[in-house]
Amino acid sequence: MTEPVNVAILGASGYTGAELIRLLLRHPHVRIVALTADRKADQAVGDVFAQFAGVDLPRLTTIGELEIDAVDLVFCALPHGTTQQVIADLIGRKPSLKIVDLSADFRLADPAAYEEWYGHPHQALELQQEAAFGLVELNREAIRSARLVANPGCHSTTSILPIVPLLRERLIHPDQIVITSATGMSGAGRGAKEEMLFSEVSEGVHAYGVGRHRHTAELDQEYEKAAGRAARATFTPMLLPMNRGIYATITVTLEAGATAEALHAALATAYWGEPFVQVLPFGKVPHSRHVRGSNNVQIGVIADRGPDRAIVISTLDNLVKGASGQAVQNMNLVCGFDETEGLGQFALFP
Amino acid sequence: MTEPVNVAILGASGYTGAELIRLLLRHPHVRIVALTADRKADQAVGDVFAQFAGVDLPRLTTIGELEIDAVDLVFCALPHGTTQQVIADLIGRKPSLKIVDLSADFRLADPAAYEEWYGHPHQALELQQEAAFGLVELNREAIRSARLVANPGCHSTTSILPIVPLLRERLIHPDQIVITSATGMSGAGRGAKEEMLFSEVSEGVHAYGVGRHRHTAELDQEYEKAAGRAARATFTPMLLPMNRGIYATITVTLEAGATAEALHAALATAYWGEPFVQVLPFGKVPHSRHVRGSNNVQIGVIADRGPDRAIVISTLDNLVKGASGQAVQNMNLVCGFDETEGLGQFALFP
Amino acid sequence: MTEPVNVAILGASGYTGAELIRLLLRHPHVRIVALTADRKADQAVGDVFAQFAGVDLPRLTTIGELEIDAVDLVFCALPHGTTQQVIADLIGRKPSLKIVDLSADFRLADPAAYEEWYGHPHQALELQQEAAFGLVELNREAIRSARLVANPGCHSTTSILPIVPLLRERLIHPDQIVITSATGMSGAGRGAKEEMLFSEVSEGVHAYGVGRHRHTAELDQEYEKAAGRAARATFTPMLLPMNRGIYATITVTLEAGATAEALHAALATAYWGEPFVQVLPFGKVPHSRHVRGSNNVQIGVIADRGPDRAIVISTLDNLVKGASGQAVQNMNLVCGFDETEGLGQFALFP
Amino acid sequence: MTEPVNVAILGASGYTGAELIRLLLRHPHVRIVALTADRKADQAVGDVFAQFAGVDLPRLTTIGELEIDAVDLVFCALPHGTTQQVIADLIGRKPSLKIVDLSADFRLADPAAYEEWYGHPHQALELQQEAAFGLVELNREAIRSARLVANPGCHSTTSILPIVPLLRERLIHPDQIVITSATGMSGAGRGAKEEMLFSEVSEGVHAYGVGRHRHTAELDQEYEKAAGRAARATFTPMLLPMNRGIYATITVTLEAGATAEALHAALATAYWGEPFVQVLPFGKVPHSRHVRGSNNVQIGVIADRGPDRAIVISTLDNLVKGASGQAVQNMNLVCGFDETEGLGQFALFP
Repeated sequence: MTEPVNVAILGASGYTGAELIRLLLRHPHVRIVALTADRKADQAVGDVFAQFAGVDLPRLTTIGELEIDAVDLVFCALPHGTTQQVIADLIGRKPSLKIVDLSADFRLADPAAYEEWYGHPHQALELQQEAAFGLVELNREAIRSARLVANPGCHSTTSILPIVPLLRERLIHPDQIVITSATGMSGAGRGAKEEMLFSEVSEGVHAYGVGRHRHTAELDQEYEKAAGRAARATFTPMLLPMNRGIYATITVTLEAGATAEALHAALATAYWGEPFVQVLPFGKVPHSRHVRGSNNVQIGVIADRGPDRAIVISTLDNLVKGASGQAVQNMNLVCGFDETEGLGQFALFP
Repeated sequence: MTEPVNVAILGASGYTGAELIRLLLRHPHVRIVALTADRKADQAVGDVFAQFAGVDLPRLTTIGELEIDAVDLVFCALPHGTTQQVIADLIGRKPSLKIVDLSADFRLADPAAYEEWYGHPHQALELQQEAAFGLVELNREAIRSARLVANPGCHSTTSILPIVPLLRERLIHPDQIVITSATGMSGAGRGAKEEMLFSEVSEGVHAYGVGRHRHTAELDQEYEKAAGRAARATFTPMLLPMNRGIYATITVTLEAGATAEALHAALATAYWGEPFVQVLPFGKVPHSRHVRGSNNVQIGVIADRGPDRAIVISTLDNLVKGASGQAVQNMNLVCGFDETEGLGQFALFP
Repeated sequence: MTEPVNVAILGASGYTGAELIRLLLRHPHVRIVALTADRKADQAVGDVFAQFAGVDLPRLTTIGELEIDAVDLVFCALPHGTTQQVIADLIGRKPSLKIVDLSADFRLADPAAYEEWYGHPHQALELQQEAAFGLVELNREAIRSARLVANPGCHSTTSILPIVPLLRERLIHPDQIVITSATGMSGAGRGAKEEMLFSEVSEGVHAYGVGRHRHTAELDQEYEKAAGRAARATFTPMLLPMNRGIYATITVTLEAGATAEALHAALATAYWGEPFVQVLPFGKVPHSRHVRGSNNVQIGVIADRGPDRAIVISTLDNLVKGASGQAVQNMNLVCGFDETEGLGQFALFP
Repeated sequence: MTEPVNVAILGASGYTGAELIRLLLRHPHVRIVALTADRKADQAVGDVFAQFAGVDLPRLTTIGELEIDAVDLVFCALPHGTTQQVIADLIGRKPSLKIVDLSADFRLADPAAYEEWYGHPHQALELQQEAAFGLVELNREAIRSARLVANPGCHSTTSILPIVPLLRERLIHPDQIVITSATGMSGAGRGAKEEMLFSEVSEGVHAYGVGRHRHTAELDQEYEKAAGRAARATFTPMLLPMNRGIYATITVTLEAGATAEALHAALATAYWGEPFVQVLPFGKVPHSRHVRGSNNVQIGVIADRGPDRAIVISTLDNLVKGASGQAVQNMNLVCGFDETEGLGQFALFP
């Protein structure tokens, strides 16, 4: 029998923290030994998230109280910017520690790109170089041997997975990628802001971060890697009146000779046998509700009316494959567990 | 190792059918061998419920095609009224068959009560007498040895669990029970009706079946059993713009000498150690979202401003503990499995 | 032609403030001359509420900047507690000022009741005595001659209107009134609180203020007045995942000789000819969506299965008849306009 | 005083029919003399749409019962395909009749385009040639003198208004227009279909009609007219879990020398003084909720990160400016009323 791994979750009172708890409680090889949440320290998890009422879990503590010796692996679900210092400290204290980081701090390998998109120089440059980009299906081997995995963004995961194989195969034009990526509200976190109130959001829709959303930098990085040259996506995120789900509608322009069917075939081939990526039959349109609560991605390819364009649609649950589920998938690789362990739940529909 | 049980689901294209599939696919001792759906026969499950795209499952068939010899246990998720004949036939053909019935057909032990509430004489009187009422926490031993279990209604489960211990202990007045029971839309099923369209339901609320909802008959039966005399609840169901969840607000009048705290203590005692019933601390108000997708029931007791009344609130997921989850719980008892097997998922929140 | 009344709205950046603007912009006899919002002073209304982009409206100011001489009537949409001092000051500076107050500060005529429910002595006792309770259909004449009108609470309006005629006619038992009153989220205001985030509220329901909601005091006051003796309602409010609407399900016990039909007849008689109260045919169940955005109340009476109880259901839009619409109705009376002026819009459904 | 126009609504039991009633009841120059709804004939409108309970309106009849002599103008809210025959008959019987048609039957001026998109030859070719395309802001003069106005589609109106001025000014590339157009559920009508049930739609999103939605034909027609050459838009509609609202995110490629600011200026100029079109300040993102229930369109222009593209966002209420509101606007022109008459209501937010 596999020895259980002792896990700490930093930032356990947010939605990705709660989702990690939900998943890890069903994981056969994980023991949750510490949960931190600075503003809610000393509270029971069941008081912060009543779905865990009565479950045997450590009380919330501050990060300062974390006893790192007892921990094998840390999930870091802290805000962007502050994370890099926290992780540098942790690794300084315990170099053997494994870390799966859900923030954006280690996703961009290029320090200049980081500085451009985040507005300040990176504070942990060596770790930034060391970190593996945690999009499992595209980077599995590097992750297995990584100490620090940078879990990709939810929008990024949704739009990287269906496009990278098409760029690799030179099927689509790297400069003509147009994405609208609609997300549920849980992606905006649990901070109390007027614009996230139910009454502000329900029964309506709006775009945000238009022309400048930071997940674009992750698209640039991965698209360029795949295309062998700089790519150019126009990326428009939207907020929908729903809790979970990302739904990317990607309009692509085909390279000469390519067809929508060829795009579909390339994706079907690329993800053949992948446990969490389902390429639907050609022409079939995915629905976000069919991945809700699961670690699945569903991808569809549909021909446009003219022969030179196609619409690629990709959907996942932003809290699972877009965050905590993928983080567990990364942990499974890092720890040598079966990659699907703890991630077998099917979507909750309706 | 336990021998797997071969299971058929009749009525697999409805929401309770899909929910059974979701749960049973994660159950270590179950093999799904047949799925029927007369109007969608010959379709793949993944075409009817895309959350199961790519999952290895039997194709949908008609009931007529069901090969009963290969089946150990049947979940019957068919409409009320037609079920009794179907089950009588099945048991006629294979008397050793185990059945968990999710319809209302075998819930009322009294033939007269059945005829009064359903408007026609029961067609399978012997089986009606034989059936065990499948509210596990109140009837566990009878279920263990049953061949036919009548899974209770979703509203009924929500309002029976918190009230029966109070009646047994003579803490509340049996004639002064006032219930509003608000439910999400999935309880209304997947039939295409104008009044269930998104545009008709969203951003609004209304009561239905006022003064005459059939689940009242189940309340009468179980309340009387507990009180040792006829009881009288006024029961008003409401439809809310959400998919899942039942939320019963029950106003009770205390018997002389009783207090709201005593009610809370009685419930805490009655459900001590129950894996799926959580009695919250006195005065704490449950939220339906904290049980969504799980088999849990959360119950709260709150004092009214006067000393003679209290408010008891009970919530569960109508498709899980209110239907398919409880059906699996019943199956576990009938088959001698651990009662919690396959039901360990936590609520999906947000 | 009627001379226009010059109106100021204090607290214009909240939802009731925005709703007042929406209604008053269509009112033929009103000129909006001042809008205050301390935390958003100096902003254009169109920046705070983009539905008014491009509309000619005064900029938001602080209350301190209000030029009272130019104002004939003030709508006061400020928080409870602070309002009484603000209004006392305004009336001190300009005794001829008319005021419609949407806070709870002047609703309770009894200083002891105020102190009990709000936890501190009233700061403007004379004005408290002077204020007219602004539930128009029950207090029309007093309002016409009032200088200060206390607009009733949203839950209160919903539950007072259908019950007062029944108590007056001695048709129901004053001690056996059980109310659940489900409300949309806009009633909770625009303050940024975690528990009001979309992700916390959507796809779920919960009760709040159980056994101690302050609107109960208004029920006590009006029910006692109608019954000629103290009454006793158990009142449980609930929050639903919708923006607008209150839906009160009221279970009543009939006095000897009364019938559900008699209740219906009493309500139909009481509200005959009322422009904003619609008593539906006996047995018909109201839906909140059919009053959304209008100043209407729809009331239904349904028989329970036993002869001694009935269910009375009442619904309105919490921001219109439950707040700003009723405030305009009060203004119309105070100013001698046609009572329906500016309130003719029909419900927005779907 | 203007003489009232006698109006009939054909197809009054659908959502656009109800919306016409809502608007026309507040119109000072309209008398509703007939309402048809074949499947609900003989019912009172208040039974079909309870928001009109108690309002004095004609009973629903069949089309066959329509007394055309008493009618000056017909709103035709019937299904596509059957409408052309109905209208040809009506005009045959009464050539002086004015008609505003909300179906798609007369929107395409080119018979070949009609046949291509609708799969059958047009049955009323002369009327097709005669019909004015009812997008008021772009075709006002032709509408004023028209007998038959073809109200444009909801998606079409949303995407034509912000793009036509840009094509006219040669600011954007006609072949590089990528649109995702997200719509609320009311646009899908009131027919009972499984895929429109609340439980199927809530908490999720999906695209539909990808690559082949019929509103694309209207875009082609109007874009070509504006560009002076064939244009090419890729148009992907999506269904959102909300009742009302269309939200088009349009990614455009700039012609050499053009800038995002120039696009904004062109739109601001084109719609200067228009009562129902609001071009927001440069860079500001519209929200659908700020036009809900109103006849307004709000348009924003945002620069992409590269200099050669921009994002144009356009939003309106699909039942108002996208259907019944624009139909009333067309009626106002046809009848010589003030264009804004009956359309002054502001958005209902929240």
